[in-house]
Amino acid sequence: MSTKKSTNNLELLRHSTAHVLAAAVLEMFPEAKFGIGPAIENGFYYDFELPRTLIPEDLPLLEEKMKEIIKANYPFEKQEISIKNAREHFEKLGQKYKVELIADLEAKGEKNVSVYKSDSFVDLCSGPHIDSTGEINPEAFALTKISGAYWKSDEKREQLQRIYGVVFAQKKELKEYKIGQEEAIKRDHRKLGKELDLFCFSDLVGPGLPLFTPKGTIIIDELKKAVESICRKYGFEKVSAPSLAKIELFEISGHAKKFGDELFHVTSEKKHDFVLKPVQCPHHTQIYASKTRSYRDLPIRYMESDKQYRAEKTGEVGGLSRVYAITVEDGHSFCRVDQVKDEVVNMVKIIKDFYSALGLWGNHRVCLSVRDYDHPEKYIGDQKDWDTCEKMLQEVSDEMNLSAEKQEGEAALYGPKLDFMFKDATGREIQIPTVQLDFATAKKFKLYYINEKGEKISPVMVHRAILGSYERFMVLLIEHFAGAFPLWLSPVQVTIIPVSEKFSQYAKEVENKLLEKNIRVETNDKGESLGKRISETEKQKVPYILVVGEREMNEKSVNVRTRAVKEQQTLSVYEFIEKVEKEIVEKS
Amino acid sequence: MSTKKSTNNLELLRHSTAHVLAAAVLEMFPEAKFGIGPAIENGFYYDFELPRTLIPEDLPLLEEKMKEIIKANYPFEKQEISIKNAREHFEKLGQKYKVELIADLEAKGEKNVSVYKSDSFVDLCSGPHIDSTGEINPEAFALTKISGAYWKSDEKREQLQRIYGVVFAQKKELKEYKIGQEEAIKRDHRKLGKELDLFCFSDLVGPGLPLFTPKGTIIIDELKKAVESICRKYGFEKVSAPSLAKIELFEISGHAKKFGDELFHVTSEKKHDFVLKPVQCPHHTQIYASKTRSYRDLPIRYMESDKQYRAEKTGEVGGLSRVYAITVEDGHSFCRVDQVKDEVVNMVKIIKDFYSALGLWGNHRVCLSVRDYDHPEKYIGDQKDWDTCEKMLQEVSDEMNLSAEKQEGEAALYGPKLDFMFKDATGREIQIPTVQLDFATAKKFKLYYINEKGEKISPVMVHRAILGSYERFMVLLIEHFAGAFPLWLSPVQVTIIPVSEKFSQYAKEVENKLLEKNIRVETNDKGESLGKRISETEKQKVPYILVVGEREMNEKSVNVRTRAVKEQQTLSVYEFIEKVEKEIVEKS
Repeated sequence: MSTKKSTNNLELLRHSTAHVLAAAVLEMFPEAKFGIGPAIENGFYYDFELPRTLIPEDLPLLEEKMKEIIKANYPFEKQEISIKNAREHFEKLGQKYKVELIADLEAKGEKNVSVYKSDSFVDLCSGPHIDSTGEINPEAFALTKISGAYWKSDEKREQLQRIYGVVFAQKKELKEYKIGQEEAIKRDHRKLGKELDLFCFSDLVGPGLPLFTPKGTIIIDELKKAVESICRKYGFEKVSAPSLAKIELFEISGHAKKFGDELFHVTSEKKHDFVLKPVQCPHHTQIYASKTRSYRDLPIRYMESDKQYRAEKTGEVGGLSRVYAITVEDGHSFCRVDQVKDEVVNMVKIIKDFYSALGLWGNHRVCLSVRDYDHPEKYIGDQKDWDTCEKMLQEVSDEMNLSAEKQEGEAALYGPKLDFMFKDATGREIQIPTVQLDFATAKKFKLYYINEKGEKISPVMVHRAILGSYERFMVLLIEHFAGAFPLWLSPVQVTIIPVSEKFSQYAKEVENKLLEKNIRVETNDKGESLGKRISETEKQKVPYILVVGEREMNEKSVNVRTRAVKEQQTLSVYEFIEKVEKEIVEKS
Repeated sequence: MSTKKSTNNLELLRHSTAHVLAAAVLEMFPEAKFGIGPAIENGFYYDFELPRTLIPEDLPLLEEKMKEIIKANYPFEKQEISIKNAREHFEKLGQKYKVELIADLEAKGEKNVSVYKSDSFVDLCSGPHIDSTGEINPEAFALTKISGAYWKSDEKREQLQRIYGVVFAQKKELKEYKIGQEEAIKRDHRKLGKELDLFCFSDLVGPGLPLFTPKGTIIIDELKKAVESICRKYGFEKVSAPSLAKIELFEISGHAKKFGDELFHVTSEKKHDFVLKPVQCPHHTQIYASKTRSYRDLPIRYMESDKQYRAEKTGEVGGLSRVYAITVEDGHSFCRVDQVKDEVVNMVKIIKDFYSALGLWGNHRVCLSVRDYDHPEKYIGDQKDWDTCEKMLQEVSDEMNLSAEKQEGEAALYGPKLDFMFKDATGREIQIPTVQLDFATAKKFKLYYINEKGEKISPVMVHRAILGSYERFMVLLIEHFAGAFPLWLSPVQVTIIPVSEKFSQYAKEVENKLLEKNIRVETNDKGESLGKRISETEKQKVPYILVVGEREMNEKSVNVRTRAVKEQQTLSVYEFIEKVEKEIVEKS
């Protein structure tokens, strides 16, 4: 309850600061016309029609004026007036947007409207507000950004200028926010992706279609190997399905309807008519269906890392976060009812193993998404099956200490699920791994197995995602590690730097020894000064830099600089290889 | 020359046998109407309109009648007659198809036609023929197949019945042909693919879109690993490009024009407009173009195994040989002119290494495809560059003992190439690996590197294919090995069979030891008798079967049955693992 209240207080504070900004803008531009100024996450914005385009230098001037208004501690006075009076008032001021809002309220049948006044500035506003401008901490707000915005978000209407601000209760919070923002910019995957040469875009290929360079491809491949190797231990077998299918496949599964205008259609002059798969499951059902299965063959577990296609809005694609094709690591188990619990337990173990290897386990919470008990009719399947399975997921949570929080109404249409929420570098929660029970899909595709009595029985499908899509997971990793990937994921694991050309031959010798052990190594002996070559390599966030000169050549050793560790260490080549191999295997 | 002549003699023989078939059909069905009866590869066919549908049992009856006609040794008598007489003759016989053919000849301005007569059977035919039916070896021909065929291949015209036959000079050749046919049926990848559970098709997904099962996926993955590991040794780096691009990309490269109606177009309700890539190279140029490259950075070598899409004709897709998406293992080197030769040498070494590992090296010949020297204007690029590069490819052939045969006029538009032709299981030659020089593509995309003097220079591109597409390569391998894949490629490398349930525990122990070493192992203890389980496993062409019982359990050993080897061998579990690991690493 208290959290809720304080959030609301902060919202009042933020919205009130928007009024203060509007008053400051009015001082600077008496002819300004006002749009709206709501509170948003961390702050507010306000839209204006102004006689000239704002420049970044205007923001500190406005901040100063706002501080004066805050210092004057003007009370926010609410007045209830008739629509007619309000219209007259704002018409007289030439505030055409406010007049339009009043007309909208009138059309809705309102008789009166409320206005808020502080000093000479009066705004049409339903409130509530803080008591007076002095409640705003003058050291805990900042104006952050200017942008364009259409009136009523309608691109056919007037384009206004929008000013964004952030507002906190304490100066300390503003400072933390600013540090977080700077950090986020530094960690931004688009910036680091370019600096570390992980992926690129081409105008000829098109936006939303990233091309992975050799370095980016290594990261994707290492992730694939890691997740496949864990899943293989738990009985998953890789399959490979085409990207295309007749739309009938997705009509049966229900995905054609679900994805609607996000489906890509594939045609040719020869009258072909396919869709690009938006999901993997329907194809996997067809591999299951290719043979008669016996109860003794189950569980059958398929996994595949393949591209799935979504026709995202053209304006919304950007970086790796939103692309037209996501490479999804997907897995399905077809099993008997008596095997479901073991399957779920194994999938949770896989998730735990994988995230532990990345040091991310612990940085999460688990949700148990169940039916909306008031509307069980919204879901597919037998109520008894739902009861059994929800109870079973709760048991798994208890037995594996997942402390899953129950979320009513969050289940999938076809079954309850366990969702794992992780925090990204900016502290935002994202849902990646999931384990979902599915009573419906096998029935839709008439899948069956033959039981002990020779009868045909529908298997249960359990869907599981470990890392979701490689593209989005790479965003998470780049930003989480700020590009300093763990050794096993690093595109270049070791860079050898000879102090001068004289030692290039020895550098080559060391390089070959490392290559023999499949360590990803490069030698940087390209003409530049030693200092420059070291700092270049450090910027590339290479885990180990080996500097080799006279002493190292004579001793058959290497001088080891470990990323983010100040001290250097001299090791024999053999010792160094042993150390690195161990760290790679242990994913430490 | 002599080969050519004997082929022609064989053709005469085959076409003459078609006449003999027609005479035999006329005896059986006096009301038969005749279409045409040309010689084809290995034999002939003849199309008829008959009063009833033929059944397979008709073929031996017809063969008997043909043998009688052969025995009677009727001469083939040629007559030149006027169009008018010919029409009257065939109209009287009610041979409407012959009458139509005569009208066609008349329309072409012919005044006379030739007819061939043997005994009472007269056929409209331009000949030539053998002298008499007795020249046909009655023991060296066979009728092979009945099928339907439209008159003049026009589906709006009459449907006729077609009888196929094969004809050789010697009985021995017919026998060899029949053995080859049986073998081809046994090795057919569609049949073996199903029996060995390597891939499947689904009506809901659509034809031309294979789904690879766990076993088929293992083979593809092992091939990928093998080819990537060899290429990595020679400096190739994996990249990953999207499947989609704006059509502009392929307009610049020239592929949009080249592939024309074979391009798949991708659209959405949100007005997206892409094509599915038909080739890899243009995407790779864009990765090269994403950074400024220096002469010291070259050669830059990219490789990728990804799907390429071709809108094949609906009626032509089938099995894995022709599909809508082929997974192509593609590679490109961007290099300086002075590096081209080394690049080519390395690519030939990769090809040699890869095919040697499969035991296929030697089963090939090499072509050096050069310009049509009479029409050098048909090609892109400087004649001097062509001279240099053709000479250089010849040197590579000489130095590496490739004995490449020069083929004038077979070069690509953009440069000369080395093509490697291998023989498939039926002895047919197929071209798979290739190394192609390309002066044009880098220029089209304005790619450059900075040379020592700071100038922008176009790199040369060298294209190379090692195994072509995984789908077609799998066809080659399945049929070549008749499903008995080498150990390293086998989806299941070892099957453990306990003689009875009593030894299932020990089987499990052995299985776990093999799994620890990443050997692909299964245990077959599912209820059936020992004999049945062994023969089932043998049918799956598993390289090693380990039978374990009392003695093996006590001795911690396994009884080893090696595929296609009669003797059994008892080894300690440790010895067996060592042996198998060695064979896998050595790809023996």
